[in-house]
Amino acid sequence: MQETQMTPELETIAANAAAAARPFADTNPRDRAKALVAVADALEANADSLVEVGMAETGLAEARLRGELRRTAVQLRMFAEAVADGAYLDVRIDQADPAFALGPRPDVRRYLVPLGPVVNFAASNFPFAFSVAGGDTASALAAGCPVILKGHPGHPELTERTAAIVAEALAAAGMPDGVFQVVTGQQEGVEILEDPRVKAGAFTGSIPAGQFLAGIAAARPVPIPFFGELGSLNPVFVTQAALDERADEIVAGFVTSVSGSAGQLCTKPGFVFVPAGHGLEQGIADAAASVAPHRLLNPRIAAGYAERREAVLAAPGVRAVAEGRVELDGSGQGWVTPTIVAVSLDDLAAGRDEILEESFGPLSVLVEVAPGTDLAALVPTLLDGNLTATVHAAAGEDAAELQALVRVLTEHAGRVLFGGWPTGVAVTPAMQHGGPWPATTNDSSTSVGTAAITRFLRPVAYQGAPESLLPEPLQTANPWGVPQTIAAAGESTGWGDDLG
Amino acid sequence: MQETQMTPELETIAANAAAAARPFADTNPRDRAKALVAVADALEANADSLVEVGMAETGLAEARLRGELRRTAVQLRMFAEAVADGAYLDVRIDQADPAFALGPRPDVRRYLVPLGPVVNFAASNFPFAFSVAGGDTASALAAGCPVILKGHPGHPELTERTAAIVAEALAAAGMPDGVFQVVTGQQEGVEILEDPRVKAGAFTGSIPAGQFLAGIAAARPVPIPFFGELGSLNPVFVTQAALDERADEIVAGFVTSVSGSAGQLCTKPGFVFVPAGHGLEQGIADAAASVAPHRLLNPRIAAGYAERREAVLAAPGVRAVAEGRVELDGSGQGWVTPTIVAVSLDDLAAGRDEILEESFGPLSVLVEVAPGTDLAALVPTLLDGNLTATVHAAAGEDAAELQALVRVLTEHAGRVLFGGWPTGVAVTPAMQHGGPWPATTNDSSTSVGTAAITRFLRPVAYQGAPESLLPEPLQTANPWGVPQTIAAAGESTGWGDDLG
Repeated sequence: MQETQMTPELETIAANAAAAARPFADTNPRDRAKALVAVADALEANADSLVEVGMAETGLAEARLRGELRRTAVQLRMFAEAVADGAYLDVRIDQADPAFALGPRPDVRRYLVPLGPVVNFAASNFPFAFSVAGGDTASALAAGCPVILKGHPGHPELTERTAAIVAEALAAAGMPDGVFQVVTGQQEGVEILEDPRVKAGAFTGSIPAGQFLAGIAAARPVPIPFFGELGSLNPVFVTQAALDERADEIVAGFVTSVSGSAGQLCTKPGFVFVPAGHGLEQGIADAAASVAPHRLLNPRIAAGYAERREAVLAAPGVRAVAEGRVELDGSGQGWVTPTIVAVSLDDLAAGRDEILEESFGPLSVLVEVAPGTDLAALVPTLLDGNLTATVHAAAGEDAAELQALVRVLTEHAGRVLFGGWPTGVAVTPAMQHGGPWPATTNDSSTSVGTAAITRFLRPVAYQGAPESLLPEPLQTANPWGVPQTIAAAGESTGWGDDLG
Repeated sequence: MQETQMTPELETIAANAAAAARPFADTNPRDRAKALVAVADALEANADSLVEVGMAETGLAEARLRGELRRTAVQLRMFAEAVADGAYLDVRIDQADPAFALGPRPDVRRYLVPLGPVVNFAASNFPFAFSVAGGDTASALAAGCPVILKGHPGHPELTERTAAIVAEALAAAGMPDGVFQVVTGQQEGVEILEDPRVKAGAFTGSIPAGQFLAGIAAARPVPIPFFGELGSLNPVFVTQAALDERADEIVAGFVTSVSGSAGQLCTKPGFVFVPAGHGLEQGIADAAASVAPHRLLNPRIAAGYAERREAVLAAPGVRAVAEGRVELDGSGQGWVTPTIVAVSLDDLAAGRDEILEESFGPLSVLVEVAPGTDLAALVPTLLDGNLTATVHAAAGEDAAELQALVRVLTEHAGRVLFGGWPTGVAVTPAMQHGGPWPATTNDSSTSVGTAAITRFLRPVAYQGAPESLLPEPLQTANPWGVPQTIAAAGESTGWGDDLG
């Protein structure tokens, strides 16, 4: 633990969050759900002004930002539904069993309780959905944890305006003071993550930054869980049969997925493995040429993308299919069109240090694979963890080779798609947005979908408690009507004597 | 990462585990369940010889070890039931929904898959239930993860014999080679935890050792989850009304819980908060005097306990209620009877560095509290995280002060008991054996109860997959008959357009 001296402002924020933790944890979930809906309503009521600020600060297009704001609002409503439903509490009740296999079994009741204050680090590329009121905030508030949001410097005014709307809506809905606060500044983010009153962290951003913050969380005197979403190549595998069936559709979907939001998406398909002799060049070049220039988020990203693109284009064996461009304007902002390159599998393997890395922008690599290549054997030699992996096969194609490929992809990604493209992450109960390192720091969790609530909860069991001292979800009377998984006496074996 | 060079033996073990990971993950869960039952059967068939070796190596009594072996076998059978049931897979299916609030929603199906090879560090104090075939091994095998068991040096022959029985039973049940292996030696344990083929670690033992290993797991180039169960004071709070109602019962239960297994239990009640003037001294002294001397596990623990006991007895304000003893025999083994001391709350607070620490052995501290003390306010000033906290109140006693105390105890423990004693941990679906730091390194998990399987799993989602390429639990035909949570089209809102 560093010997930093917090500023009085930061100290107040940490103290407020700590003071809010218990009253917020104790709010009735239906009240908390209503508060989430109130935040969603407030964001949508302010959509015009928020989107305008967002466009100016990020360069993202109006339609994209309007869609993202709507997604953010819908996401809040879905978490509200999940909270009201109560299944997320994972209530388990073991009824007392005097005839248990290992001696009398006590009445044990377990559910999940909020961890306490969490600090969420906002991302630059989703100024709504992964920022102030984004998925990390929504899921932490849903769990009943006060949120300290570390604002991203890429959209400071939008951060301030959104935060004011969120805080006001939560207060108006009767939530305790201190349930939602914002800090800005890199050093402030580190200090608040180190503060003993903070009980968890979540982050979306680069591998080095995520690794640095995860290290801080793990090295605290009292370590805390840290959920970082970092980098992903999002490989795509296209079979010859799929090309025979729908090459045009694949080309159109690919270029749209690479170029949307100027490729600044964590699930952008970065590497597309295609059969050598695919013949897609002209189609891709034409589709890419029709994409209008798009501004990158900020000058730092523009500079990084330009450098990375140069390195890829200069790597031995790489040829441009659609060269695209990146032009810096007078203020250092970068304007881009898609760059699609092709490389043989052998040249990729030889030049992996230059080529096989994420490019944050509209660049993607076609990897040309000779017939008969064992892709399933190849994957572990080329790929680390990813958020997604995609397979394009033909209808009914399910040969043993394809099954083997799918099997190995599940070991290297949190989500495997069949057809379609990995950008566009549905916010639904089954969604998994996570994956083995370096896709995330913690591949047992998701940052999208209602399962994301679980990151901010821990189990507590009550043993032999009278009904009057049980929290509502564990009471036999079940006043909140939450789902309860009940193990009745005599249903299973167990143990309850002198060991422990 | 150190630049260590593994021995050929260790390299072979890591390679075997890695080679076993995929075939083991792909075993039919009913076959895996049968293999767990086969292990249970084999352990019970060899109970006589195993218990004999265990008694010689640990000093634990025959009845205790027979009970522990039975618990271990029952635990394996319960995990077998859980695997066969399939609820642990947490299958979620979102049906495709063309009318989803944010655009057409794809078919998304999510379940949990095994992490891969795990290394489990055995404990000294449960040579069966937290060792070779204990809860960590059972839950990892249940999850479908190959296990590398780091044997505890306190019971080497028992480790070797048990491991041979486990490995043989698994092989006879058709499980792949390499699903269960043993390493010994501290350096070997560290090296295997650092090996990139290992995907998770579990540990039960001391705070310094657990902190050291957790640091290694977090600092790897690819960090892995590490589930350590470390230290716990297991505070107990007794109200005046409870004493009025059943002082004798409380005294008897207390002394039994402190002295069982010579107090070498992670859930031993270490601090009992009682009203000043409780009048329990004579009863405790009498009960403690009737406890026969018991050997501690090994000379290192004996020396540590003797030192710790001296420090507590010498602390200002501490008086012996039952002084007990610790006698070292010629071979350095320690023979003990219970030591129960009393101290006022003020003296405890003043001498917290000497007194307020875990004693691994049959020592417990009565903390005498003046009437009117606000215990709920006191807890955060005295206690860190614990595995358990216990409340002894009278029937019907549920005053606001008691409710406030219970509320704060849930913030400092993974399990809160009402009456009874924390030793004796039921292996059941609702059990929570974990708690905030330093009770564990990861308080979102449990190491006892069937929820322990989840530690060794991660989610994977399939999007838009044809039935023929889906794993059995995600298939609509559901050939394994596992529970599937289905979100039908039109049931909820969501999002599925161009963002990601």
